[in-house]
Amino acid sequence: MTMLQNPSVKYRPFPTVPLDNRQWPSRVIDKAPRWLSTDMRDGNQSLIDPMDAVKKNRFFDTLVKVGLKEIEVGFPAAGATEFDFIQNLVRAGRIPDDVMVQVLTQSREDLIRRSFESLEGAKQAIVHVYNAVSPAWRDIVFRMTKAEVREIAVAGAKVIRDEAGKRPGTDWHFEYSPETFSTAELDFSIECCEAVMQVLQPTPERPIILNLPATVEAATANIYADQIEYFCRNLPNRDSAVISLHTHNDRGTGVAAAELGLMAGADRIEGCLFGNGERTGNCCLVTMALNMYTQGVDPGLDFSDIDAVIETVEYCNQIPVHQRHPYGGELVFTAFSGSHQDAIKKGFEAHEQQNDELWRVPYLPIDPADLGRNYEAVIRVNSQSGKGGFAWVLEQDKGLKLPKRMQPHFSKAVQRMADETGRELNAADIWQAFRHEYHLSRPQHFQLVEYEEARAADGTRIFSGKVSVKGEERSVSGRGNGLISSVIATLRDSFDLALEVNDYSEHALNKGSDARAAAYVECVTPNGDTVWGVGIDEDVATASVRAILSAANGALDLQP
Amino acid sequence: MTMLQNPSVKYRPFPTVPLDNRQWPSRVIDKAPRWLSTDMRDGNQSLIDPMDAVKKNRFFDTLVKVGLKEIEVGFPAAGATEFDFIQNLVRAGRIPDDVMVQVLTQSREDLIRRSFESLEGAKQAIVHVYNAVSPAWRDIVFRMTKAEVREIAVAGAKVIRDEAGKRPGTDWHFEYSPETFSTAELDFSIECCEAVMQVLQPTPERPIILNLPATVEAATANIYADQIEYFCRNLPNRDSAVISLHTHNDRGTGVAAAELGLMAGADRIEGCLFGNGERTGNCCLVTMALNMYTQGVDPGLDFSDIDAVIETVEYCNQIPVHQRHPYGGELVFTAFSGSHQDAIKKGFEAHEQQNDELWRVPYLPIDPADLGRNYEAVIRVNSQSGKGGFAWVLEQDKGLKLPKRMQPHFSKAVQRMADETGRELNAADIWQAFRHEYHLSRPQHFQLVEYEEARAADGTRIFSGKVSVKGEERSVSGRGNGLISSVIATLRDSFDLALEVNDYSEHALNKGSDARAAAYVECVTPNGDTVWGVGIDEDVATASVRAILSAANGALDLQP
Repeated sequence: MTMLQNPSVKYRPFPTVPLDNRQWPSRVIDKAPRWLSTDMRDGNQSLIDPMDAVKKNRFFDTLVKVGLKEIEVGFPAAGATEFDFIQNLVRAGRIPDDVMVQVLTQSREDLIRRSFESLEGAKQAIVHVYNAVSPAWRDIVFRMTKAEVREIAVAGAKVIRDEAGKRPGTDWHFEYSPETFSTAELDFSIECCEAVMQVLQPTPERPIILNLPATVEAATANIYADQIEYFCRNLPNRDSAVISLHTHNDRGTGVAAAELGLMAGADRIEGCLFGNGERTGNCCLVTMALNMYTQGVDPGLDFSDIDAVIETVEYCNQIPVHQRHPYGGELVFTAFSGSHQDAIKKGFEAHEQQNDELWRVPYLPIDPADLGRNYEAVIRVNSQSGKGGFAWVLEQDKGLKLPKRMQPHFSKAVQRMADETGRELNAADIWQAFRHEYHLSRPQHFQLVEYEEARAADGTRIFSGKVSVKGEERSVSGRGNGLISSVIATLRDSFDLALEVNDYSEHALNKGSDARAAAYVECVTPNGDTVWGVGIDEDVATASVRAILSAANGALDLQP
Repeated sequence: MTMLQNPSVKYRPFPTVPLDNRQWPSRVIDKAPRWLSTDMRDGNQSLIDPMDAVKKNRFFDTLVKVGLKEIEVGFPAAGATEFDFIQNLVRAGRIPDDVMVQVLTQSREDLIRRSFESLEGAKQAIVHVYNAVSPAWRDIVFRMTKAEVREIAVAGAKVIRDEAGKRPGTDWHFEYSPETFSTAELDFSIECCEAVMQVLQPTPERPIILNLPATVEAATANIYADQIEYFCRNLPNRDSAVISLHTHNDRGTGVAAAELGLMAGADRIEGCLFGNGERTGNCCLVTMALNMYTQGVDPGLDFSDIDAVIETVEYCNQIPVHQRHPYGGELVFTAFSGSHQDAIKKGFEAHEQQNDELWRVPYLPIDPADLGRNYEAVIRVNSQSGKGGFAWVLEQDKGLKLPKRMQPHFSKAVQRMADETGRELNAADIWQAFRHEYHLSRPQHFQLVEYEEARAADGTRIFSGKVSVKGEERSVSGRGNGLISSVIATLRDSFDLALEVNDYSEHALNKGSDARAAAYVECVTPNGDTVWGVGIDEDVATASVRAILSAANGALDLQP
């Protein structure tokens, strides 16, 4: 069970492109291309169960809503299902005036005629004819010479020209694909395209769409870009053609190839939402559009409710969007590790305080809110997490803002819980750990029943109240120069428990129906151990008293 | 619910790299890099439920089996679970002599010490220290100057140097990551790396690993390559460093960035099997290795049983490998459309006949057999499919080799069935359609009961036998110059059914336990209609007789 020792017996390196003075690596994408969705054609034909008419209509409407203006709706000559759907789409008036539907056909007279028939009555439409041109297809599939293959394209172009001439009621546009372009000789692809252009006579005002597919992705993305640059430079009448790219993802680089190809001179991108399509799929339009968006370039497509788009795509394709799919996956705005969580938390804080709108939050390449997603989903906590994560959760979920020095202390408790359970901790787990660690759940050793505070003649404060000790109520009192020191004195005088207060803070809880306060106190025991106490109450003073009793309970835990 | 009209308010284009005389676009990948799996670190920390020790051990063993020689096994200072697993891995002797485990730690003295402790007893190991260096992290997360950030790296390097010095029993190697490299100033990353190198004093014989992460993918893949080329050119003592790449996939181009970065001068690739890792994941090691493999370059990793690898990855990560994931997805060696299926069928035929081993099968960038996959899974049939698909299925499943001229005839029957059912047709569906179309299932109008063949004195053949007609047996006979013409004569004489034989072929069935024969006959009716008949029998002669009766049944279907 070992791999071939020498794959070079079976596979060969892809040839490089003879391209002098390559320009594309210095270019940037600064405006949106024309987009074509082929979800209902390349995408649909690659499904285990192709869409029925209900699904196709839903997909079409979603594409329109997203902002697609060119939509390949099928292969009408392939069968009655396809033909009828397309004809009904036209007749039912579902196609907005600014949207062009496109149909695909092989370059065969009967199929081309059938394709025109399916579009009967359309205001405007694109007829897309293809034939494969690469040596493997010529030699293995067709057993034809170059001249014969070129003639297939020319013959198809003539039928297109004539069929369009017979139907002046529709504004016809044409697309020609030298299929298998990326594995064909570049000059032969140009030759075929040029021959088709000679028949159809495109102009800069009415250009032909020339689509250059990586039918099977067969080389690194830079080579595809070289091919596109070479093609654009050497095509006669370049200004009468719209160069369209149709990449596949066999090497996992379909989006990169489309991006570099766009830099190399293309005008139009074909692809599917979330990268559906034959085998490994097409270029993902969502990814490519949002990649532009995050560079400040308006893609002209709207994914502000990305979850609604995902719902349609998953329903119609019956293929899930992967958890790690860029922008759309469930996990892509989630950080599990502590350092990531901490950085994101600080990023959100900085974002609220900054004077501009620029997005700079660490680890998040896009504001999830731009896609209709929530910040709350960003952080979860597991055994890999540090203090940032649970602090975020406690703040989001309970409104608790733990003092910075307290966080490492609680971190250990969270870590222990994560290690013990071996699973992700959710907000409820963290709250439970917090209540346990800081003795907020009943019963506890020391529990406040009631108290009063009095001011003595010398200005000191007197704390007097009832504390339940292991369930038994005792009346206790103590004196200090403030409420906290009077409770500390009470603990010392009544229970022989000597604590020193090192730090104290308190804040209003901004979540929840009733305004309450949370108090945090850091104490040191005679042994030098640090204990933290937490008190939560409707009354700010009572919260402090509870915090000290909480610390006292913590101190007892440390006693041998 | 519309997207921001102007994303440039919130996002900015990524700055280009000042790189003169760029070299990488002209280079090709002609040898494998060093590989590091970070499945058990970056991968594990990004899981909803991190792996327990059982899963980690299983994952580790799979990585070793695949051929990984450098494996990042965790973040030992992050918690007891991580620490104990790593220490047990070392103690249990699970690490082969030619494998180095690597542990990650932030650049903090206590964490570095703890990391060294976890590797106590290892023969060899890599300690990987990181600190984030980009402006966003310096300004938002750390609030530190460049000098302070560089000092974190230097201080960590000193601890590493000292800890390693105390533990001479292990062959220590070091990796330093200027985290967030791709969004940092290139010269500052070089400055930090150089400062670390000054402490650790690497040599060409004992180089340091410098890892240059795209912690968050933030630009097109070519820009990352520019960054790598710039770094490699400007790093002092370049030959004392192994340049490692760690890409993420936030823009869907993580594999492309790693490939272009490798062309730009890197030596080592970090990633995860099937692209696990924080958020959108890391570079997929399977994809990148097999991309090399399909170019004739031995990647040094073995995916000849890719399904076993997928099983481990899915079990341990609890995240499925997507159906369209390159090389590994369920659907990536599947073609649904007719033209694809036809081309693949011809490609396989040509492959069997060619004199070399070169892989040239259309639409399949790799021989599925190289990954332990089957050809049988390649083709399915749905309403988008043409004749290639079902012909393949009938041949694979039943051994039937339909004559080329018969295929369009049966194609229509398949198309009808696909249109009617609206779902993918499986092999059983196609077989059912075939038996129905060619009257192979009982009862039929004409059904052979038994027959004898005799030679007349003039050399002609006499067919005499019993044929069940609508369930009623009749004794019939006819004479011709061969078996077939005598059956044709019988039909004409006994049933007034005039058929003319246009074509005939027969072959042995090479599948199934018993050797049988299939006969195909193309007949023309008096009206000029073409009917096909099929006969299958243990006896070659009987198969022909059955084929003609099958055609006769077909002819009756055509009568008004």
